[in-house]
Amino acid sequence: MALHPFDPLTPAELTKGVAILKANHPGKLLHIKTGERLEPPKEYMKKFLAAESAGTPIAPPPRVAHFMYYILEEKKVSELKVNLDTGAIDSYVQHPRGVHPPIDPWEAERAAEVVLPSPEFAEAIAKCGLTDKIECVTFDGWMYGSNERGEGRLGITDRFMMMLMYCRDPKTNHPDSNMYSFPLPFVPIYDILEDKLVRIDWCATGGDEDDINGFDYNTRKDIKCTTDTNVACEYDPSLQESLRTDLKPLNVIQPEGPSFTLNGNEISWQKWKLRITFTPREGLVLHNLTFDGRQTFYRLAVEEMAVPYFDPRPPASRRCAFDFGDCGGGKTANELELGCDCLGTIKYFGGSLVDPKGNVYTKKNTICVHEQDDGIAMKHTNYRTNVPIVQRRRILVIQTILTVGNYEYIFAWHLDQAAGIKLEIRATGIVSTTYLDPGKFNKYGTVVSPSVFAASHQHIFNVRIDPAVDGHENTVAYCDTIQSPWGPKNPDGQAAYNQVNYVEKSTFLDVDIPKNRYVKICNENKKNTISGNPVAYKLHAVPTALLMARPGSVVNDRAQFATHAFWVTKYKDQEFYPGGPFTNQSADEVGGVMDAVRRKDDVRNTDVVLWHSFGLTHHPRVEDFPVMPVEMMSMMLTPNDFFDRNPLLDIPPSTQKFNRSVEVMDCRSCKM
Amino acid sequence: MALHPFDPLTPAELTKGVAILKANHPGKLLHIKTGERLEPPKEYMKKFLAAESAGTPIAPPPRVAHFMYYILEEKKVSELKVNLDTGAIDSYVQHPRGVHPPIDPWEAERAAEVVLPSPEFAEAIAKCGLTDKIECVTFDGWMYGSNERGEGRLGITDRFMMMLMYCRDPKTNHPDSNMYSFPLPFVPIYDILEDKLVRIDWCATGGDEDDINGFDYNTRKDIKCTTDTNVACEYDPSLQESLRTDLKPLNVIQPEGPSFTLNGNEISWQKWKLRITFTPREGLVLHNLTFDGRQTFYRLAVEEMAVPYFDPRPPASRRCAFDFGDCGGGKTANELELGCDCLGTIKYFGGSLVDPKGNVYTKKNTICVHEQDDGIAMKHTNYRTNVPIVQRRRILVIQTILTVGNYEYIFAWHLDQAAGIKLEIRATGIVSTTYLDPGKFNKYGTVVSPSVFAASHQHIFNVRIDPAVDGHENTVAYCDTIQSPWGPKNPDGQAAYNQVNYVEKSTFLDVDIPKNRYVKICNENKKNTISGNPVAYKLHAVPTALLMARPGSVVNDRAQFATHAFWVTKYKDQEFYPGGPFTNQSADEVGGVMDAVRRKDDVRNTDVVLWHSFGLTHHPRVEDFPVMPVEMMSMMLTPNDFFDRNPLLDIPPSTQKFNRSVEVMDCRSCKM
Repeated sequence: MALHPFDPLTPAELTKGVAILKANHPGKLLHIKTGERLEPPKEYMKKFLAAESAGTPIAPPPRVAHFMYYILEEKKVSELKVNLDTGAIDSYVQHPRGVHPPIDPWEAERAAEVVLPSPEFAEAIAKCGLTDKIECVTFDGWMYGSNERGEGRLGITDRFMMMLMYCRDPKTNHPDSNMYSFPLPFVPIYDILEDKLVRIDWCATGGDEDDINGFDYNTRKDIKCTTDTNVACEYDPSLQESLRTDLKPLNVIQPEGPSFTLNGNEISWQKWKLRITFTPREGLVLHNLTFDGRQTFYRLAVEEMAVPYFDPRPPASRRCAFDFGDCGGGKTANELELGCDCLGTIKYFGGSLVDPKGNVYTKKNTICVHEQDDGIAMKHTNYRTNVPIVQRRRILVIQTILTVGNYEYIFAWHLDQAAGIKLEIRATGIVSTTYLDPGKFNKYGTVVSPSVFAASHQHIFNVRIDPAVDGHENTVAYCDTIQSPWGPKNPDGQAAYNQVNYVEKSTFLDVDIPKNRYVKICNENKKNTISGNPVAYKLHAVPTALLMARPGSVVNDRAQFATHAFWVTKYKDQEFYPGGPFTNQSADEVGGVMDAVRRKDDVRNTDVVLWHSFGLTHHPRVEDFPVMPVEMMSMMLTPNDFFDRNPLLDIPPSTQKFNRSVEVMDCRSCKM
Repeated sequence: MALHPFDPLTPAELTKGVAILKANHPGKLLHIKTGERLEPPKEYMKKFLAAESAGTPIAPPPRVAHFMYYILEEKKVSELKVNLDTGAIDSYVQHPRGVHPPIDPWEAERAAEVVLPSPEFAEAIAKCGLTDKIECVTFDGWMYGSNERGEGRLGITDRFMMMLMYCRDPKTNHPDSNMYSFPLPFVPIYDILEDKLVRIDWCATGGDEDDINGFDYNTRKDIKCTTDTNVACEYDPSLQESLRTDLKPLNVIQPEGPSFTLNGNEISWQKWKLRITFTPREGLVLHNLTFDGRQTFYRLAVEEMAVPYFDPRPPASRRCAFDFGDCGGGKTANELELGCDCLGTIKYFGGSLVDPKGNVYTKKNTICVHEQDDGIAMKHTNYRTNVPIVQRRRILVIQTILTVGNYEYIFAWHLDQAAGIKLEIRATGIVSTTYLDPGKFNKYGTVVSPSVFAASHQHIFNVRIDPAVDGHENTVAYCDTIQSPWGPKNPDGQAAYNQVNYVEKSTFLDVDIPKNRYVKICNENKKNTISGNPVAYKLHAVPTALLMARPGSVVNDRAQFATHAFWVTKYKDQEFYPGGPFTNQSADEVGGVMDAVRRKDDVRNTDVVLWHSFGLTHHPRVEDFPVMPVEMMSMMLTPNDFFDRNPLLDIPPSTQKFNRSVEVMDCRSCKM
């Protein structure tokens, strides 16, 4: 089958690209961060998609590979774009030091090789009384985060990794023992580019009343060993005392198979048609979504997440992860397992990546697609005739799951039969923990297990919505409900109306709950013939607290996207990342959504992009340990005067013949 | 089986109660509004439940029937409480005129008998040119709403019904033709107590630029017949041109039956135990919810909903329904059908009601209970070993569906295995429509079909949360995330912490998104041994716009509960209704939650009640017609330092053996 321009690079294409890349730097040692398809230029894709839709296809744009990598001896990150059709180099750029690409597991492995055998590390372990338990000691390699600035808008030139130290339960040393139950009070700082241990930071382990700086462990006598003070708190089912036995099986059966059809990475389901793409940084991307042949969205993806921590005590204060920009949604995507991560009749998609040495490897099952019953779609009973009509709500779920060190994120796009799109996010996994002296408490977080402190933190997500509501010329509007003034036109004081404000220039916007503010994406060139309003999609936003870090702080500077809920910018090729392309150790949001807003572009009736930021402010509870039950949030996009009536009307009514439910009669044990 | 004090009255008990009621008013004509079990006094129930839980039961409290009814010739509403054990009258009260109980379908039937044959009605129909189509004409009997005041805090003494007039499609006169496609521009006002047509109100049918008062139809010449200007917009599947044929069956199979067990109205599932109750006003009520033997909530119910409309043009401006207080959640509950309203293995509960003449009738299947798979409950992959653990999220759904005239509401409580409780609300059904002159638009709503105007409106819900978090002495706290000031204890400016504010006196509270405000219910007498915090449940509120009607308006006065998100009051027997016991035609919120707040009770560490108001502000879209796709919202209650670790740990891991999923291999048609 011919490749579609939106299809990711095949392993063969990636291999070819790597060969060109290496040939471009003969004799140099490279450390490749990412290799992926460069998103084709939109102007070309508009023509291509129009021609494709008309059944008169034109030539696809060239396949271009985009690599980000270190030339190791130069200690600078480079980007190379290769035309795979011709083998030509499209562009090459080398960034100054202070621009840092994502960290990766190979760097963490190397950190272990350098730091763990060092005498400084042995001394720290000895101070903790763990010398004879060294085989239980382990760590998470973390982005250094940043509370320091480099030159200009750049970060510091040193490229560091924080090694957050933990210990598996020494009683079992089970490989899946929950090491987060035993955090150690020191953090080795490894210099990735210099390949050396820089220093060991000792952590503050006190309560509210204590100094925020780490104790002087050179003189302090009372270093408790976590294995004396802490207790194992295990999540692995095999390490539980017992499991519930009273949960009966629940199977989802589709005797005639799923309702979707596939054509390569294109999926068709219930009037929807869209392309599923996998990228190293974003993971799951949806392209060219149409409903009943009409364009709705050109591209949808979760683009970034900032995870700043509130604990002001260094080195814990440095924790601020950008899970997409610093790690990568595709690179951390789980290989999903049948019968575990989804229920029902599942189609999987995988993805190919490039390792630091240029070897191409493929992850299976990074994306799963399946149908779900989602309750009732619409119901009405005519009470005169007592005739009910009810249609069930079937959804198509497109899901990916990331493991970013200790944490897990489940992202699922739900398409529905009424042309609605929901993004559901579930946060789970393990909270990042530090050691707290026995009996102490600290207002910057919660003690979740004896001497285990889980700092309060945020997860601020950003979703990039590139609309194509009946075409590419769209306008974002914010709508406020306005209370009419008392007067002859409002004699009873109950009048209010929806005021539609079209956004003219690139800008950010905030939520306004009392005004019922919402944002919609309109096509002013096409009016709904019934209502007279422009055809539109409405964003059902997630109204949440945003970044708590104060203006002027480095965290605030580098995560500007996390300071406002809505961003309206003019489309620009390759402008996908709200925190900028380089978030790791950044000191400012260079090339991010605030810079795009600052262009003051005209955004009315043009190719516009809407970005939505929202988040979880997570003050951990004891129940969140050892693994947290999912915390869920969701945003929606629904047609708003896009159709001339409810698009569900042709869904067959819900019947017992089709649904085959079973009634439980009165019984005490309910065995069927 | 012996009745539990929380069990509703049986048909035999209701019949006995009606006999005592009638004997108490010999020779009088009664119109009974409701007959139900009086909720037992809480002080007694605390003892009863403690004894029951200890296995040393004590005598139940007396079974008391509570009736609300008119003595017709007195034109006043009365309430009578009868001790069914002894036959004694516990209390009797007669209210002044201006206190109005709910409307009912029998009153609407009578309105039709009186008004439709009247010469005034015939004249109105003739003006609309519908005399020869009279068999297609129909109406919704509506609560008069109110924008008028009576004496003191009472409503007006007249008891009115608005007859919103519609016409079935004259081309078919199909009994389930969508009459809301053909609204007629006049509203007969029927006096229920005087049993007569009062007047006919003609509606304004113009645009923004026109007068808000109705045209003078006595002189106006250009009355359009809706059947000339409007078009049928049908929802009934049998009236569609065609239905989709590409949706494949999806069946939920529980081969070993459900995981719940039943004991009368008590249901046990995954460590949860609770009692399901049906009442005429609330419909679905949950009582005495315990998890693993620990008390969590004494009583949970959706108690009220105000539905004010924004259109200032009389008589449409008068529309403000209180769907529970003016109609009744139990009285309007659907009889659910197997395989239509739920999927899987379903247990139904019904409920008994009393008609105006005192006949007891039983509705089947007003409540359904079943399990659902709800995605992933928790997941973590140890990236060192690449071993994932994943538990699926099973929920128990307890659902009821109301039809209140044109609209439908689906209320579903979801219990989960992590001791969380979600209330999911879906709004569907048909928007209330009025006639708009062809080609006109009006900012107070949306034209959803030619000459069919759907006014903007709100649905403000109130949920009453009567907690028993490890006992009955509880405290409500609101928690704000506070940004620490810059300084030596916050050198990087990123510090923030959760400030817990315990509520001392009964009050209302608002949402505060920028501060991440949330509300929790604590038991200060019981500290979590790990975190040191009081055991608690957190409310995940629904942050929405609240009542738009201006302070000083009658709508605002009578729906005070709809003006703030949270209300904290001291428990008082029979104080269930935030809008007061009598909402119909009310002019003020007498005996509602604002009056409870005004008592300035001490609410710290005592028997406290938390009420949450939230809503939909609905500016209709064309897609909402003829039946609207569900609009969904949900609130949650989750344990917060209630347990000493994640309560999901003993859930068996998700396995293919248990879940039996099916993988779709590459194929174009996906036939399995």
